[in-house]
Amino acid sequence: MDGNDDASSLVGLRTSSDGPPIAVAPAGPQGIVDAVVAGGGRLVGVDQADGLIWADPADAEGLKRALEQSPARWVQLPFAGIEGFVAAGAIDPGRTWTCAKGIYGRSCAEHALGFMIAAAHRFKTYFAATTWLGEDESSTDSTLAGTTVVIVGTGGIGGALAAMVKPLGMQAIGVNRSGKPLADAGRTVTVDRLGEVLEEADFSVIATALTDETRGLFDAEMLGRIKRGGWLINVARGGVVVTDALVDSLRSGALGGAGLDVTDPEPLPDGHPLWDMANVMITPHVANTWNMGLAELTALVRRNVGHYAAGEALEAQVDPQLGY
Amino acid sequence: MDGNDDASSLVGLRTSSDGPPIAVAPAGPQGIVDAVVAGGGRLVGVDQADGLIWADPADAEGLKRALEQSPARWVQLPFAGIEGFVAAGAIDPGRTWTCAKGIYGRSCAEHALGFMIAAAHRFKTYFAATTWLGEDESSTDSTLAGTTVVIVGTGGIGGALAAMVKPLGMQAIGVNRSGKPLADAGRTVTVDRLGEVLEEADFSVIATALTDETRGLFDAEMLGRIKRGGWLINVARGGVVVTDALVDSLRSGALGGAGLDVTDPEPLPDGHPLWDMANVMITPHVANTWNMGLAELTALVRRNVGHYAAGEALEAQVDPQLGY
Repeated sequence: MDGNDDASSLVGLRTSSDGPPIAVAPAGPQGIVDAVVAGGGRLVGVDQADGLIWADPADAEGLKRALEQSPARWVQLPFAGIEGFVAAGAIDPGRTWTCAKGIYGRSCAEHALGFMIAAAHRFKTYFAATTWLGEDESSTDSTLAGTTVVIVGTGGIGGALAAMVKPLGMQAIGVNRSGKPLADAGRTVTVDRLGEVLEEADFSVIATALTDETRGLFDAEMLGRIKRGGWLINVARGGVVVTDALVDSLRSGALGGAGLDVTDPEPLPDGHPLWDMANVMITPHVANTWNMGLAELTALVRRNVGHYAAGEALEAQVDPQLGY
Repeated sequence: MDGNDDASSLVGLRTSSDGPPIAVAPAGPQGIVDAVVAGGGRLVGVDQADGLIWADPADAEGLKRALEQSPARWVQLPFAGIEGFVAAGAIDPGRTWTCAKGIYGRSCAEHALGFMIAAAHRFKTYFAATTWLGEDESSTDSTLAGTTVVIVGTGGIGGALAAMVKPLGMQAIGVNRSGKPLADAGRTVTVDRLGEVLEEADFSVIATALTDETRGLFDAEMLGRIKRGGWLINVARGGVVVTDALVDSLRSGALGGAGLDVTDPEPLPDGHPLWDMANVMITPHVANTWNMGLAELTALVRRNVGHYAAGEALEAQVDPQLGY
């Protein structure tokens, strides 16, 4: 409850007396506290809060304890991927929930784009070299122009990525539950047609939440549908891919390679076969660090406190049924 | 003259009898020969050619020998960077010259974008790891959103790059000789103001031809103008940068790092200090491989043969004075 204490110490100084009572817990960055005030909120303790800004991306148990003593009708979570909070039973459907979906979209999309460029331009090989390898007539260096990327999940990451690949001359195909068109994509299909579009995929980018529906979606069969030599990129959640099946697809040469910011299990244990594959790039869940998104998270908190104060609809609402 | 022989063998089969006489030499890919025909040209030997499509990116002496026996009034070169041909005295100003500028722009721009993402997201460190490094609160991982890139040279590479960085939320500043606005850049300045804009540069991308004017442009003084901690990216020509000054700037920490597809000397010798720097990414002049550009080069040849046949202005003309 340190953050709560911090927040309370500011009440007299900075908040309006008639704004909605909002708590920030646990100790969050000062920017978030400031955002509550800037949005018109009145800083209070959790036990008096109508709205709770939860500032710890990992501590689901701490949130449950805080809610036991809080009448908060609205809870703002600080991250987009909330499956840990869902699994811990922290998402009480009697309250309104918002998360940070969309906030980290651009940095994750940027990371996925970097993986694709790194794959085509063989960065992993070259970055490890300490001698000039030169251009080889048989080299597999290529450009992304004219290639096709299937983007699975058309939320914040997918939307940003589709816009990013366009000026590179790539073709994007969106995949989602509804078939609602992804802006900047050539076409969008419903997830039951995923296997079909994977047959065209030079790159398959996983940009979806981890839910009961997406867990293990890329199993041996689905991986086998990907165009031969295509690359799998995952910047979302490791559990969307069946790791052993991925290893098999890479070993057989069916897949050209993989770029993974997330794995299952995560952290990926030392000695795992993925570490030793020349055509696998691994980054340790850093596509969206806390620091990268903080400015946008702060802006979202300010806007949502403003919406709450004005009785307007909140942004980035979570559907407790769907889990995102 | 093998290519010439190849081409001649096709004359009877495929070319119209009234198109302009065009030679392809030395032996180029079949796609280029086909493009001459598709553009309406009549394939002939170099000694009868009005137009010569030179299909070897490196052999300036071979071109000089071919021109000694050719009346060609127009010569199409297959690459954008023609300073080797200029230095060899192959660019006879009595003929019309076209090159492949613009063709390789997108793959070079893509490579530069890859370097920037790799810098921000620390790909070199992570790709070399065989253990999960995890997210560290003090990590320097960052996103490109909100950063500024100064693009030196606003031709094919610069134009493509400015379009590519826009959806990432980057700000682009173009630098060229004329000050002619670079589309998608926030502003464009003339090269005499380069030092001034470098003070804002999180990334400085060299995308200019190597000419007397640009050789050594990034010397100790100019490197010193770059915003502290900024990165230098070079996907154009090594000679634009004074390598010893670059090493000093990296060692002092003034520069945050570098991404180099070209070096001076090139190839970069084994044991050179740049090989051992953790914040230097080196690729061996592969941003624009022959294979990457071939489809676009072929299309350019087809269009230019068509223009030539119709008496229209040719695309990608070289100014023999400027050397690009």
